[in-house]
This record gives sequence, structure tokens and C-alpha cells, in this order.
Amino acid sequence: MKSHLSPADLRALIEAARGLGKCDVVVRGAFVLNVYTGETTRADVGIAGRHIALVSPPNTQIEADRVIDADRLFLLPGFIDSHVHLESSLLTPAEFVRAVLPTGTTAVVIDPHEIAGVAGADGIRELIAAAADLPVTFYVTIPSCVPALDLDAAGVRLDAADMADLAALPNVVGVAEMMNYRGVLEARDDVLEKLTCLPHCVIDGHAPGLSGRDLQAYIAAGISSDHETTDCWEGLEKLRAGMYLMIREGSVARNLDDLARLVNNNTFDRCLLVTDDLLPTDIIDRGHINHLLRRMVHHGVTPARAVRMATLNAAQRFGIERVGAVAAGCVADIVAVEDLADFDAAFVIAKGQLAAVEGGLVEPVRAHGFSPGITHTVHLPELCREDFIIAAGEGDARVMEAIENQIVTRRLFARPATLGGRVVSDTENDILKIVVVERHGRSGSIGRGLVKGFHLKSGAIAGSVAHDSHNVVAVGANDQDILVAVQRVGEIDGGLVVAAGGNVIEELPLPIGGLMSLESGPVVAARLRRLEHVARELGCPMSHPFMTLSFMCLPVVPELKLTAEGLFDVDQARIVPLFAEEPGETEIAAAG
Amino acid sequence: MKSHLSPADLRALIEAARGLGKCDVVVRGAFVLNVYTGETTRADVGIAGRHIALVSPPNTQIEADRVIDADRLFLLPGFIDSHVHLESSLLTPAEFVRAVLPTGTTAVVIDPHEIAGVAGADGIRELIAAAADLPVTFYVTIPSCVPALDLDAAGVRLDAADMADLAALPNVVGVAEMMNYRGVLEARDDVLEKLTCLPHCVIDGHAPGLSGRDLQAYIAAGISSDHETTDCWEGLEKLRAGMYLMIREGSVARNLDDLARLVNNNTFDRCLLVTDDLLPTDIIDRGHINHLLRRMVHHGVTPARAVRMATLNAAQRFGIERVGAVAAGCVADIVAVEDLADFDAAFVIAKGQLAAVEGGLVEPVRAHGFSPGITHTVHLPELCREDFIIAAGEGDARVMEAIENQIVTRRLFARPATLGGRVVSDTENDILKIVVVERHGRSGSIGRGLVKGFHLKSGAIAGSVAHDSHNVVAVGANDQDILVAVQRVGEIDGGLVVAAGGNVIEELPLPIGGLMSLESGPVVAARLRRLEHVARELGCPMSHPFMTLSFMCLPVVPELKLTAEGLFDVDQARIVPLFAEEPGETEIAAAG
Repeated sequence: MKSHLSPADLRALIEAARGLGKCDVVVRGAFVLNVYTGETTRADVGIAGRHIALVSPPNTQIEADRVIDADRLFLLPGFIDSHVHLESSLLTPAEFVRAVLPTGTTAVVIDPHEIAGVAGADGIRELIAAAADLPVTFYVTIPSCVPALDLDAAGVRLDAADMADLAALPNVVGVAEMMNYRGVLEARDDVLEKLTCLPHCVIDGHAPGLSGRDLQAYIAAGISSDHETTDCWEGLEKLRAGMYLMIREGSVARNLDDLARLVNNNTFDRCLLVTDDLLPTDIIDRGHINHLLRRMVHHGVTPARAVRMATLNAAQRFGIERVGAVAAGCVADIVAVEDLADFDAAFVIAKGQLAAVEGGLVEPVRAHGFSPGITHTVHLPELCREDFIIAAGEGDARVMEAIENQIVTRRLFARPATLGGRVVSDTENDILKIVVVERHGRSGSIGRGLVKGFHLKSGAIAGSVAHDSHNVVAVGANDQDILVAVQRVGEIDGGLVVAAGGNVIEELPLPIGGLMSLESGPVVAARLRRLEHVARELGCPMSHPFMTLSFMCLPVVPELKLTAEGLFDVDQARIVPLFAEEPGETEIAAAG
Repeated sequence: MKSHLSPADLRALIEAARGLGKCDVVVRGAFVLNVYTGETTRADVGIAGRHIALVSPPNTQIEADRVIDADRLFLLPGFIDSHVHLESSLLTPAEFVRAVLPTGTTAVVIDPHEIAGVAGADGIRELIAAAADLPVTFYVTIPSCVPALDLDAAGVRLDAADMADLAALPNVVGVAEMMNYRGVLEARDDVLEKLTCLPHCVIDGHAPGLSGRDLQAYIAAGISSDHETTDCWEGLEKLRAGMYLMIREGSVARNLDDLARLVNNNTFDRCLLVTDDLLPTDIIDRGHINHLLRRMVHHGVTPARAVRMATLNAAQRFGIERVGAVAAGCVADIVAVEDLADFDAAFVIAKGQLAAVEGGLVEPVRAHGFSPGITHTVHLPELCREDFIIAAGEGDARVMEAIENQIVTRRLFARPATLGGRVVSDTENDILKIVVVERHGRSGSIGRGLVKGFHLKSGAIAGSVAHDSHNVVAVGANDQDILVAVQRVGEIDGGLVVAAGGNVIEELPLPIGGLMSLESGPVVAARLRRLEHVARELGCPMSHPFMTLSFMCLPVVPELKLTAEGLFDVDQARIVPLFAEEPGETEIAAAG
């Protein structure tokens, strides 16, 4: 993606660089980190309009309207998150910017597939409109898997023609993660069409555990990155095969500690930093990409390389010109930090403007008014307790095991507790009922299953954030609280809810697509913390129970997931019954 | 630039990779150099159609129609010359392919500005048509400086609108070298239009010696590479400023030995290998990019990095997808070499086909029939000896000093020999007459000057290759031989000629635009060698007198050049008289 500068823009830059015209801003006295050479040298930086006009030795005669003293600070290019689902922050674009810009983030590559799953192409258009003209640049990858799989009871479907239409939107840089890797391997027509519908874009991947010839096939199809890598050998195989390795450190999926050692003298230009899904609490507590930089340096990666992964490499991977370096001609996205270990931003310049100082924005960001089409999206069927009945069956039942800080689940077999011929939540052994209710006002289907790991002793938690179809998902110690929680999610047009004793105890409304709040980052984070605290009081030991809950429905990540159409075995790629179908299946599964 | 694969193409690749479909070719048993990780590991490579379907551990079960045994060989990606003027090889595209493909070159990025200077946009179109469907891919950069400077007596002019038209041609990857760096620095309207007319393309640079704020301005204008760097510090400044450094080793301009040390752990992905201008004799004697690889390794650069500079880096700099690696999904351009020091190719696979074995092509390349518009381009005025008279003047005269293996000249001042009030060639002191005759049938202007360095004791040499306007240039010991040589160049529709004693002694016709022969590489090389041999017998000690001669007219390279409009001082950017204008100028110039 080129930045479309006019002849007049170029003239202003040329004249400012040569000292024939004035700069708007000059930043003096800092050590500038050069991502091209890995050096850090003292230099002055002159900015004209939105761009850097020149980087020159200290005390160069640069006339400017504004002088910023950056003595003793390091200047870095603004940080880029190369793959993030904005919706997971629960924040609007403006509030997201308010939260991440002061940490040094000046650009993100978003995959708006959550809002697409709820509100389709119009939802993507509205999200992008809301993200326009903010001081953080939102580059867009076009969702390739809405729904994630065909069987998913999704609100909307985007086919190749829809994707091609969306490619005309501003700042489109690629095709978003091709999660349907099985569809790729089977060379399904609709998938191949999606892989060829945006001929000028790179294609991001999603290939957890893919290896050997299947990985070769997936890459031969044109998919050139992966952010689902969890293991060092897996990462090495993908790097060798030619993929850009997106090292992910999100709120739940945290892979950086395992993958940092893959960054070496030969591979550093092929690695990127991404958060994928990041909760507002983590943004407030840890920061954004600055946190990942801190961790990389902690693991022994040089600061220059860590920064390069989050700047120039991102620009190169997505073919974005004039971005990713503190250098003449680049967009003036600049972070000033006090040291190269903590990466705490003293100030941030975005698009040539001083945008944040000491953690706060200089000017308020413009809020966007959202349309009713995107703020009233939860349409539940009429529900009663009987809708959640699971009839007892023979033998062992399939149980999803949720794993803290992972989006994968394990497939277990266990004998569930029953009462009067019905399966009930077994709080003693932590085998709880989980339900998914279709919420787009279509089938009204309800999926029912069992899950281990949430440890609720009473009450229920529910939410309308449930990747990727965002039906309403709930897990609970009893059906009554599950019902109360699910219904409340419907009443507030989507959100996160805790119910106990038949009452709603705590809630966070997420009216934008049932995914995002209209409140500010600190408010959303505080309410989410209260929700998590209440869940903890009910027995759930997880640090992020709602985010873990939101991944229980994602049928493109192993091993067992619950959709509104029923339990889905990811390896077998089919709906499976709750109870083992044949004698001995339990043992075979355990052995396999 | 994406390669436009269809869904059917993808299906074939996916199925071949997974073993569900047959490969066309499998290369077994080689050590594959992985440009992504710098590793060299044993692997088998399966090819389906034009692309690599998979790279997998040795002895993978890969069914294929053809098995190529590459035991004990190294497999490398096909070499890419990132900047070359095809015309300088004096060969047609087909004959160029015949010469370079067996050396391992499978792609070149051409800048067809020589043919453009003679035959305009039509010339470019015809050259590209002649290069289509050959086993070497010709990526095209659109000439930005035709003519090189406004004052140049050029055949043709390409403006921004012409460039935009040409951008629709196949395989266009960028804007070719912006040689008019002064026009950039002065922010001239026509130059800024050219810099913004192809918004989706990168822009190559040409910035000999540019430094400091001028360099910053040139880069701020969007120009992101340079191949004119001759010195290590100059190269470091350009790398730091964000330019891709194209390390050049051509027939005359040889910079590799000086620049090799710039390739280090942090910069190796920002360096490329280019030849710029390469004579057919050098291609036959030394090879092409394989020679540059050899030199880089000789200078201590690891083979993996040297190869990467000539493969993946080139693809990245120009945004060419699926090229530059031996990896699944990439175009099957593969070179098998016996060692990683000499880089002699045992065989070359191009676009999936075994194309060259042991130095020879497997199948003949298709020749292209050229139109009369491109084969009759030399239109000289009527000439007689009097046209070359230089009246003697007062004081010292400006003399160009040609420097062996450089395209720059030095500006000297010296007192010329005179006879009967006329300046004559001074063979004793090696100050010879040089003339440039406009040959496009327009002004018929004749430029006259003096040159040092050719050392002809008798006779004259002339040629229609004279960058970038390709007027006819000649240098000689006497006017009669100059006249004979120039006239002969006209009679044969362009070419290189040696005359002595009033007769043509040797010649190489170059009927295509006065630039390229219709003969094969070995024939052209042999005739060029004879020309050089004869020139040597006449006293010229240069290894490449005709190529050195061809740079005497290039007004965008320092310091003093001769155009058909007269002597041109490059620093002052103006036509200057032969004799110093003011008393003392000689001393000032010498001091400055």
C-alpha cells in the first residue's frame, strides 16, 4: 500500500528537508533508533505536515514552528500490531485509540471478523468509518472466514464477491486469517475463490499445529503468515517454509515466551508482534505492543530487533510504504521512550502531531455515532429452563476441557452427574453445563454440552462474545442462573453477565454488535474486573473467564467445541453427539 | 506484484503438495538453501506446473513424471538482477536469455531507458514484447528520465502521462531510476509529477554522491533505492536513511569490492545485487549474477546472505510475490550448483522447466521479429570534416578526463594543441578531440570537446551507444577518421566502428535502436573483442573503450560531459564553453 502524496506534498517535504521551507515540528537531542541498520545515534528529526522531512546530525539548523526537546530520550518508530481483532478489546475504535496510543501504538492491522459475523459487510464498513481519521491508523484485512466454518450458526456469510467489494475500502492491506485450513487442504471451491479474489493482497494464515505436507499445501495456496504457532519447532517449520511468523501475546493466547528464541540473526526480519485478542484490562494494566517489546528484550532479543519486528517488519509484510521507521519520507509516527527495556512512552507523535504525553492524549479523540443496525443485534428466541435440558445417555459423555491462557480445548470423556434422567452440572467434579443460543434471530438453535475448567460452585456466566459467530454462550452451576444470565444478555443488546441465586449480579453491556462497549477503556476495564471478581467469588479460578468462555465455540481451533448446532469435533470436522456413540470409543479416543 | 493464480492452479498445487495429485518434476537429494532462515538442509522439491508444490524431507514419497537427481548439488533460488539496462548487453532479449540463463539468472528488473531514448514508448513496448514468454522473467521499471535532462538533444521525451500509460504493461514493478536528482531537489513540477504518476510502484534512485540534507530530501520525495554508490560511507549513509542499497558490479562501474563490507547482521536484507550495464564479453567471460555472488563470498559474506541479496531481497524490494525462494508456492526458478563458492550452475530450472544444463539451454529460445521503426533509427545530418572544426581560444580549455571502470569524468583544464587557428588532437599529451552528433534526425546539432584517457595515437572510434540520448559519439586522433567512423555508424543503422587511415577497420552493427545486435551472444562478444583489440592497437589502453566512450555524454553523472548541444558542467547544471570564460577560472576550479 502506497501513501498517495501529491506533488505539493512532495514539494513541502523536499523544501523542509533542504532548509528552504520551515518544518512544523523539530524533535531535538534524542537518540534515534535506526531500524534499517540497528544503530542508535543522536539526531534531530524535522517534521513537515504528516511526514518526516529529515533526520540529521544533532544541532542541524532546522527552522520549525515547534521545538520538542527529547534530550535523553530514545525515538522509535510508532508501534504496529500486525494482527488484532479490535472487537476483543470491547472498545470502540476511538476508545481503543485512547487506550493504546499513549503506549506507543500508532497503527494496527485489524481483522474485523467479529463484527462481520454479527453485522456483515455493513458492520465492517461502519467499524472502518468509526476508525477513520483517528491518530492511530487502522489497516484492514478482509475477513475470509465469515462464518468460520459452514456448519456454524452464523449471522452472516461473506463470500468471495463480498470480499472483493470490501477490498475497495481505504487502508485494505490483505486477506485476513484463512481459518478454514481444512477447506484449503480439501481445495474447496469457495475457499479457493476466496484465496484468489483479492489478487493484490497478501493472505494471512491461521494454521495451529499444521505441519509437513499439509503445511506445504496451505502455503502453496498463497497463505504467507501464521499467528497460531504455540511451539518453537512448529514456528521453525513455518519460518523455513516461508511464512512470516506472527509472535502472539494476547490476553488468553500467550506464545511469546515460547517463541522468542526463534528470533535470530537470520530470521529477525521475518517475525512480527501481534496481540490477536486483548482485553481492556490487559491494555490498562500491561499496555499494548510496548508490553510485547518488554518481553522480547527480557528474552534477550536486542531492542533494535524487537522494535523492528513491531515496525518496519509489519510495514514490509503488508507492503505499506513510508511507514515503520524514523526516516525521511516516513509518516511521522514516533514514540519517545526513556529506556529500551521498559519502553514507557514519554510522548507519542502520530501523523506529525504531538498526540500523547506521559500516558494521556493531548487532544480528545472524535467519537463516532453508531447506527441502530449495529447497536441492536441480539435477537434471542423465547427461552425457558426446559430449553437447556440434556437427557442422560449411556456411558461416558464428551467433555470440553478449557485450558487457561489457551484457545484450544481438550476432548475428555467422563460420566456426567444426572438427576431424574437429566444431565446436571457436577460442581464437585467441575463438569458444568454449557449452552450456546443462536442470537441472530434465525434458527434459534440451542447447543448443549459439558465443560471442565470453570469451577463455578454456583451461579452462571454468559456473554454475547463467542468467536466467531457470537451467539450467546453460558456456563453455569444450574439451569436457572444460566437462563437468567442468557436472557439478560438479550435484554441489554449484548454484553457479559454474571447471575447467581436467580438474579443478575453484575453486567457489562456491549451494545455495538454485542461485542463492544460505548464506555471508555478505564470504565470497561473496571466493569470487566468486577465481573471477573464476582465470577471468582462463585468459584471460577480463571484470570479471564469471559475470554476463555468466548473461545468455547470456535470450531476452527482444536479439539472439541460447542456450536448452536451441537458439539463439534474439530479433528473429525463434524458434529458429534454428547455421549460416545459406540462402545469402546472412549478408550480409542484416549489412546489416540 | 502478485502472481495471478487461478483457483484451478491452486488446486493443482495443493493436491500435488499433499500427494493426492502427481508432481510434474521432483528434484531429489540436493541440499536446499533456505533464504528465510539461512540454513542449508537436505530436501526433495516437488514441482507442479510453473510452481514449487512442496519442499520436504529427503525420500518423501513424491510421485512425479520426471525425477531429477541432484545428489551432492545445492539448490538455490534463481538469481535476480535487480537493475540492469538490457540494451548495454548489446543483445536482444532472447539472446540475453541464452547468455544468462545457464549462469543461473531467472529474472531481471530492466530499465529500458536506452531504447526509450531512441524509440520512445513504442520502443519500450517492442522490447517488452520481445521479452515476453521467455524462460527468464523481465520485470520492468518505467523510465523516469527520458531524456536524462531537458537540455539533452534527445530523440524522445516521456512525460508523466506517458509513464502512467506504460504502467499498464505486464510485469511492471516500479519507476526506474530518477536520474534528475537536481530536478528533485529543485522540486520541479515535471519531476514531481513523474514521482507521483505511478502511485502503486516503488521508485528507484540514482544519487551518486548525494549526502546530508539533499539526500534526505531526495528520499523524502519517495525514492527508495540507489545503485550509484561507490564508497562505503556513502553506502552507510544511504542505508541509514532507508534506501535499499543496490551493490553494482557492471562492466565499467564496479563497486562491489568497496561495498561488500556493508553487508552485516543488520543490513543484509536491505542490500541487492545489480549489474546496471554489462557487456556481452563480460557475460561470456565472467557470467552474470553468479559472478557477483562469487565476489560477495570472496569478501566474507556467507553464501546464504549473498544468495538472499540476489533472490528474496529483490522480490521484497519490488513487492513481487511467490518469487525468490525454493519454497512451496514459489515460482519454480531453481539453480543447482556444485558449491557455494564458484556458483557454477549444473542445471537451471525456469518456471518449472529444466531450462539449462551444464552451461547450455535445453531448448532454443524463440526469436522476435523487430519492426522497421526500431531497426532504422540513425538519421545523421550530412557531414564533412569542417563540421568538426574547433576554433582555438584564449587560455586553457575544459577537458573531460575519462576514468577506467568509472562512469564519472573529471573536469580538467589544459592548453590544447592548435594548428592554423584550430584545435587538434594532441596525441602526445593524450588530449583528443571528441564529437557528438545528434542522430535522431532533429536538430542535427554537433557537440565538440576534448577528452583525456583514450590515448589513441591514430584513427578514431565511434558508436551510437551514448547514454542516454544515444547520439553518435566519436573520439579520434584526427578529423578524417572521426568523420569516417561517424558516417559508417550512420550507414549501418547504428553500431560501433573503428576507423584508421581513412578506412573502416572493424565494426559491430547494432541495428535495433542503434543499441542492440541481432547476433548471438558469442558472436557479439567476439566482434566486440575484435573492436577492442583494434582500438588497443591504435593506442587505447582501456579494457572497455566503447563502454567508457558511451558514458562521455551522460549529463547526470559528474563532472563534465559532452552533449550534442555542447560541453555540460554537471555540478553547475549548464552548458559551458570549451575555453575558460574568465581569467583565473582555471585556478579557482583547480582549488575547488
